[in-house]
Amino acid sequence: MPITVLVGNPKPKSRTLDAAVRLATRLGDGPPERVIDVVGLGPGLLGRDDPAVAEAVARVREAELLVVASPTFKATYTGLLKLFLDQIPSGGLAGVTAVPLMLGAGPAHALAPELLLKPVLVELGARCPAQGLYQLDSAYAEDPALGEWLTRWGPQLAPAPRPA
Amino acid sequence: MPITVLVGNPKPKSRTLDAAVRLATRLGDGPPERVIDVVGLGPGLLGRDDPAVAEAVARVREAELLVVASPTFKATYTGLLKLFLDQIPSGGLAGVTAVPLMLGAGPAHALAPELLLKPVLVELGARCPAQGLYQLDSAYAEDPALGEWLTRWGPQLAPAPRPA
Amino acid sequence: MPITVLVGNPKPKSRTLDAAVRLATRLGDGPPERVIDVVGLGPGLLGRDDPAVAEAVARVREAELLVVASPTFKATYTGLLKLFLDQIPSGGLAGVTAVPLMLGAGPAHALAPELLLKPVLVELGARCPAQGLYQLDSAYAEDPALGEWLTRWGPQLAPAPRPA
Amino acid sequence: MPITVLVGNPKPKSRTLDAAVRLATRLGDGPPERVIDVVGLGPGLLGRDDPAVAEAVARVREAELLVVASPTFKATYTGLLKLFLDQIPSGGLAGVTAVPLMLGAGPAHALAPELLLKPVLVELGARCPAQGLYQLDSAYAEDPALGEWLTRWGPQLAPAPRPA
Repeated sequence: MPITVLVGNPKPKSRTLDAAVRLATRLGDGPPERVIDVVGLGPGLLGRDDPAVAEAVARVREAELLVVASPTFKATYTGLLKLFLDQIPSGGLAGVTAVPLMLGAGPAHALAPELLLKPVLVELGARCPAQGLYQLDSAYAEDPALGEWLTRWGPQLAPAPRPA
Repeated sequence: MPITVLVGNPKPKSRTLDAAVRLATRLGDGPPERVIDVVGLGPGLLGRDDPAVAEAVARVREAELLVVASPTFKATYTGLLKLFLDQIPSGGLAGVTAVPLMLGAGPAHALAPELLLKPVLVELGARCPAQGLYQLDSAYAEDPALGEWLTRWGPQLAPAPRPA
Repeated sequence: MPITVLVGNPKPKSRTLDAAVRLATRLGDGPPERVIDVVGLGPGLLGRDDPAVAEAVARVREAELLVVASPTFKATYTGLLKLFLDQIPSGGLAGVTAVPLMLGAGPAHALAPELLLKPVLVELGARCPAQGLYQLDSAYAEDPALGEWLTRWGPQLAPAPRPA
Repeated sequence: MPITVLVGNPKPKSRTLDAAVRLATRLGDGPPERVIDVVGLGPGLLGRDDPAVAEAVARVREAELLVVASPTFKATYTGLLKLFLDQIPSGGLAGVTAVPLMLGAGPAHALAPELLLKPVLVELGARCPAQGLYQLDSAYAEDPALGEWLTRWGPQLAPAPRPA
């Protein structure tokens, strides 16, 4: 199953990106087909017709499984990630199965992927059958909670039927 | 597909129940197999070992597709519905595909099923691939938004793989 | 300042109640004037005209400062607490300053008081100027986070102007 | 009372800005002292040390009353607004009283200011004693709900005590 990773961390090649790639690799039995590090798109994110942004949006919309990852800023996802999501047209993630992933410095914001990030993806039309996942940025690489999450939710992440 | 309807309205045989049965009928090409009107369970809901409550919990957990419906009180689901959901053991809805449905007097609380009711069902282990649905209690029977919702989300509500 | 404590834990005299009384005592420089343990109201909570429930609602509405406390069930407040809040008329907490407090077994649900409980109180008309507070049920009595919270938010909890 | 308006609409001089200025004017018995239209800050928002952004952050932090306004994109506030809020240091709005305001094309997202925008401001340390306000972008100028909102919440928006 082709998997795309979308990361909204202002720091390039962040731990957020690494954690998202690890999750995608576990879900797909191999590395993700494509990784989009939003910060690399630069100021074109602030406008409406940037070709690189349009290309990235098109790639995201083609994904079968999309891991959407953000660090936790102010107890929720980053403005950088939302800036990219705002470029996706209404309903533009129909047919995409998406997984919200957030990393944070401590455990207090663990509800944010489910309560805050997932509804944005659903509003865009994505199917989000798994609970949002939260990992500590200091411990994601050996996170025992990841195994539990995969056991519980992994089977739900098979490809969605595409709308006719 | 056997569908169960769970309704948390303090008024028996409410419009909430009627709307939930209509939704279930559309999703299942026939009337739901079972309808649980929580208010009928009475004071046993306040304790821990009531046989009728335990029986209702068992029925809900057997559902393949579960429509969970509430009127909107104080901009969210009712205490009555949550009282019942609190009786379900941790992870007790694993293997159930659930649809959050809320009815309200006006349109202002339309985000409540997605932002507030769905996360409770997901926390219980349910798979909720469709956006939460909100309908006006004065207009649900001829609600044009229902057709749109069914087109968009209906295909996602096929039965989930049961955990091994 | 007269403070009222409202507790929605199915277990009477719970740690939730103890934590709420401690918080109220810190906020008011003395024990709270009144403590309402919702579970004691019994099956009258399920109807509409119970005199003891009506009396408790009236007491809550008279509070200047109201600590509203719940354990965390299914990642949010209890159905028992919401059952009581559903008995308060629309706008019925106007003029009340309220503090949402939740206790949980682990840190993962720390956003619940702010994201889930506070909006119910605000919808009822309460003024909630402080961030919702979350404490571990195993450690609330010596919680260092409480001191920080009091320093940051305590000054905001002076009585609200009553509506004319 | 000096009031600042902060607007996160990708279109300069938007209806969002106009609605926020109108609200500020009603709250302050005169036009706001300062209006910050985030879009004007440009690509500096994507970095960490832009002088114009730093200056705008400083101005926001000096406000006694801050109206924070956004259009509704994907059922929540814009990435542009969050990009600016992410530049504010942790706890940086302590001592500021803030009002979340969102505009939308229809009524369905009316819970977003209270459930989604307000918690970001509170996490930054702002005091948000009023319910988040939502207005239709087609009708905000003659919105009867504004008068009701002002009657109910206006008295709560007196200046907060500054932390010592």
